[in-house]
Amino acid sequence: MRWARFESNGKASYGIIEGSDIEAVDGDMLGTYKRTGKRVPLAKVKLLVPLVPQTFYAAGLNYVHHIMEQAKMHGREPNIPEKPDIGYRANNALIAHEEDVIVPKDATDKVQYEAEIVVIIGKKAKNLTEKDALSCVFGYTIGNDVSERTWQKGDRTMWRAKNTDTFKPMGPWIETDVDLNKLKTTVRVNGKQTIEFDTNHMLFGIERYISAMSKYLTLHPGDMIWMGTEGSAPNLKDGDVVEIEINQIGTLRNRFVREK
Amino acid sequence: MRWARFESNGKASYGIIEGSDIEAVDGDMLGTYKRTGKRVPLAKVKLLVPLVPQTFYAAGLNYVHHIMEQAKMHGREPNIPEKPDIGYRANNALIAHEEDVIVPKDATDKVQYEAEIVVIIGKKAKNLTEKDALSCVFGYTIGNDVSERTWQKGDRTMWRAKNTDTFKPMGPWIETDVDLNKLKTTVRVNGKQTIEFDTNHMLFGIERYISAMSKYLTLHPGDMIWMGTEGSAPNLKDGDVVEIEINQIGTLRNRFVREK
Repeated sequence: MRWARFESNGKASYGIIEGSDIEAVDGDMLGTYKRTGKRVPLAKVKLLVPLVPQTFYAAGLNYVHHIMEQAKMHGREPNIPEKPDIGYRANNALIAHEEDVIVPKDATDKVQYEAEIVVIIGKKAKNLTEKDALSCVFGYTIGNDVSERTWQKGDRTMWRAKNTDTFKPMGPWIETDVDLNKLKTTVRVNGKQTIEFDTNHMLFGIERYISAMSKYLTLHPGDMIWMGTEGSAPNLKDGDVVEIEINQIGTLRNRFVREK
Repeated sequence: MRWARFESNGKASYGIIEGSDIEAVDGDMLGTYKRTGKRVPLAKVKLLVPLVPQTFYAAGLNYVHHIMEQAKMHGREPNIPEKPDIGYRANNALIAHEEDVIVPKDATDKVQYEAEIVVIIGKKAKNLTEKDALSCVFGYTIGNDVSERTWQKGDRTMWRAKNTDTFKPMGPWIETDVDLNKLKTTVRVNGKQTIEFDTNHMLFGIERYISAMSKYLTLHPGDMIWMGTEGSAPNLKDGDVVEIEINQIGTLRNRFVREK
């Protein structure tokens, strides 16, 4: 099932996508809801960020080639994580599919995409084994963990490098049924493919992260976990359009615009 | 004015504290609300975390003696921040005044309090000067940034060191009228004072942080910023009761309990 959040009469509504239409639902995607039978063409609605989470988790370094490339760029030895220590991003930075990433005037030219699968938590969970970890997952969407590499290297935290307003495009929607081992992430800049990788080929997989996290913290419905990215990325220029496609989920598209 | 969030007939309600009573209000503390005239003794209600934020900001290292003590404890040179780079904490860890901090079985004995003033944002804000920074502030409360120092030193992020469930006591309520320069933070363990410091004697003050943050990100009503702590703290034992008092605001009290 494919869930989207969209603008309807000036307020946010959830809907179920079927074919090229979206059917509005009353109620809570993660709780109880009722289908309304009201269908509109998907092309006619403005999609919103599919979820504003209670806690916004991010794995960070979680694919081997990306870790190597980052170390090279920052001029240090690669630091392969030994265990799944989760990190955080911030809600202020979230934008929807087709909204523009606004790059501040004083950002350097090292602004890059990071193509990530996003795990949406649907059930309260504590102390899950790896075997049971996916039982709390509602579905999956796509995130672009936009990063300003100069700030990332020089600041004490990643606050503006990764959480400047508009630096977290997410969407276009949430897909509940995927076969993780058959997912491929493909990135295109201005229509030209820059990378393709096996989405689930992570250093620590989704099950491992959820199990480790839930030993110390309760996962709540509406939390989300961004799972990291693979490889290196080019510096993005004013006007570049980045598309991140994960087969079985969809394509997240955003233009990068330099603040004037 | 003093605002609390409390449990009323099984659901969360906001109220205004006057003397030893609390008066329930209908509506949104940060938006439009209506006083109901219904007053109950404060002693008879269960206080809740006064706010669950959209984004949970934390300054981390922001008082000089604390930075020195932390460096000594971790066996490294003190690293005095050169600019106000904000960090993050997580909502899962929030608990209210009088609720217990549950220390996991496998935590070491290095579990410590950090006594902090918490800034509650009341208005949407972007690009504020230092002079205008406090115009977006709704009020202030108290936070205990509980930390497991062994995990803090060894993990790649501070996820479990600072964000294990129950590690973020906050409250008891929000005070809107304070004179920042007359605030004193006092901590007591089992009734015995361990430290007292000038709350506003920070490396980077509240105005400086808000101004710097709002250059890159929009602050939203209901966001909050924990401003860091001063000095060192003792390791806490099973059953210890920690009280953090900030004059003009109140006292946040929590017991530390080792998981059996």
